[in-house]
Amino acid sequence: MKILAFDTSNKPLSVAVVEDGKVLAHVESSENKTHSVTLLPDIQDSLADASLSVNDIDRIAVADGPGSYTGVRIAVTVAKTLAFTLDKPLVGISSLKLLAADGGDDRFLVPLMDARNDNAYAGVYSNEHERLVNVVEDQHITMTKLLELLQDYDEDQLEFINATQKLTDLIREKYPHAKIISDEDSLPDATKLAKLAEHAEPVKDIDSFVPTYLRLTQAEHDWYAKGHKDDGNISYVEEV
Amino acid sequence: MKILAFDTSNKPLSVAVVEDGKVLAHVESSENKTHSVTLLPDIQDSLADASLSVNDIDRIAVADGPGSYTGVRIAVTVAKTLAFTLDKPLVGISSLKLLAADGGDDRFLVPLMDARNDNAYAGVYSNEHERLVNVVEDQHITMTKLLELLQDYDEDQLEFINATQKLTDLIREKYPHAKIISDEDSLPDATKLAKLAEHAEPVKDIDSFVPTYLRLTQAEHDWYAKGHKDDGNISYVEEV
Repeated sequence: MKILAFDTSNKPLSVAVVEDGKVLAHVESSENKTHSVTLLPDIQDSLADASLSVNDIDRIAVADGPGSYTGVRIAVTVAKTLAFTLDKPLVGISSLKLLAADGGDDRFLVPLMDARNDNAYAGVYSNEHERLVNVVEDQHITMTKLLELLQDYDEDQLEFINATQKLTDLIREKYPHAKIISDEDSLPDATKLAKLAEHAEPVKDIDSFVPTYLRLTQAEHDWYAKGHKDDGNISYVEEV
Repeated sequence: MKILAFDTSNKPLSVAVVEDGKVLAHVESSENKTHSVTLLPDIQDSLADASLSVNDIDRIAVADGPGSYTGVRIAVTVAKTLAFTLDKPLVGISSLKLLAADGGDDRFLVPLMDARNDNAYAGVYSNEHERLVNVVEDQHITMTKLLELLQDYDEDQLEFINATQKLTDLIREKYPHAKIISDEDSLPDATKLAKLAEHAEPVKDIDSFVPTYLRLTQAEHDWYAKGHKDDGNISYVEEV
């Protein structure tokens, strides 16, 4: 099975073409351009590197959030349009689960994204028989709550992944001996995304597949704070 | 030539399939759902109505702004992905030009979008031999400046299109005899978009095709106002 996978939920963009576990192409683009401009060219480059046409692809895989609001939205839209046009299955994988794929065996993996003001997007995963199992679901959470919640685990088994310096400092206060992989050392990797997607269940209804933001964006928050009401019909995005 | 055309720059979403000037399908969706959710299903419905597969389409046409930031961005992304996947030409048409296609012959057409605080997105077009010619380029402009700029034209020949009540009041103060089509009477129409796109020049480089916003969004404005600098590399959208 040939899988085209892409992740835009972090700053570097990663695109890969993987066939039955073998990496045919992997393109990572630097941070200095917007994902909406570079995603399609990077997909084209990956396919060219793999000597494939887009019609040869059997499955589309996308990291569906949380993460960069615009990045994830663009990637999900491209993934849906490809899946629709090619009439091929689409798999969405949590961006946090993808980060957890960087973690070690026999550990409790805590992938993180810094959400500012001592908050994070985080989940807990365990690596069981080379299969990532979600132990605590992905959520937007204060670091205080997250670190409390992890008290049930053996500190030596905890591995935090993608921690900014700020988050690292907060973790160290409570868990000086936990393993921490910094954000600089945990780059997104679409080859791992493809591997996670190979045995995952495809989306049942492509049309209703939407990104997982886990919380309101600051702009949405401000909009609601101004007294706008969500009546379930007209959404914030239609207004801006 | 079979053209798939869609416009998301206004609140109602319009999708059409047109072959050599003949409308094969036209789907307009109501305002109560987000374009990012309804665009692909509406495209599928249009193709089904036209008894065509997406692979039968010869050309993709999209209204590329100005207009709803998110709406236009999603539509342009879907259009680019379709054009890339199907390897078919892509045509971008100004959302204001599309509004002008509603106007009468032998008139100077002034399509408008209300940009709040007595500002508008506007351009001036003339309908010459059934061909829309752009006389004053699309821009983000104060209503005061726009109405001044139109002094050179014969009031009886002016036709404002898509004016909100607020804009209508401002126009009436200066041009009581100009023709005004209200925003309620000038709905977007992808069948007209397809016709405009039939003889238009396709985009040369699909990858670098981006929406025409004409000005910073409020969120971008706020972001820059907070002291962020655009060094030409990292853009606002990567940060949120």
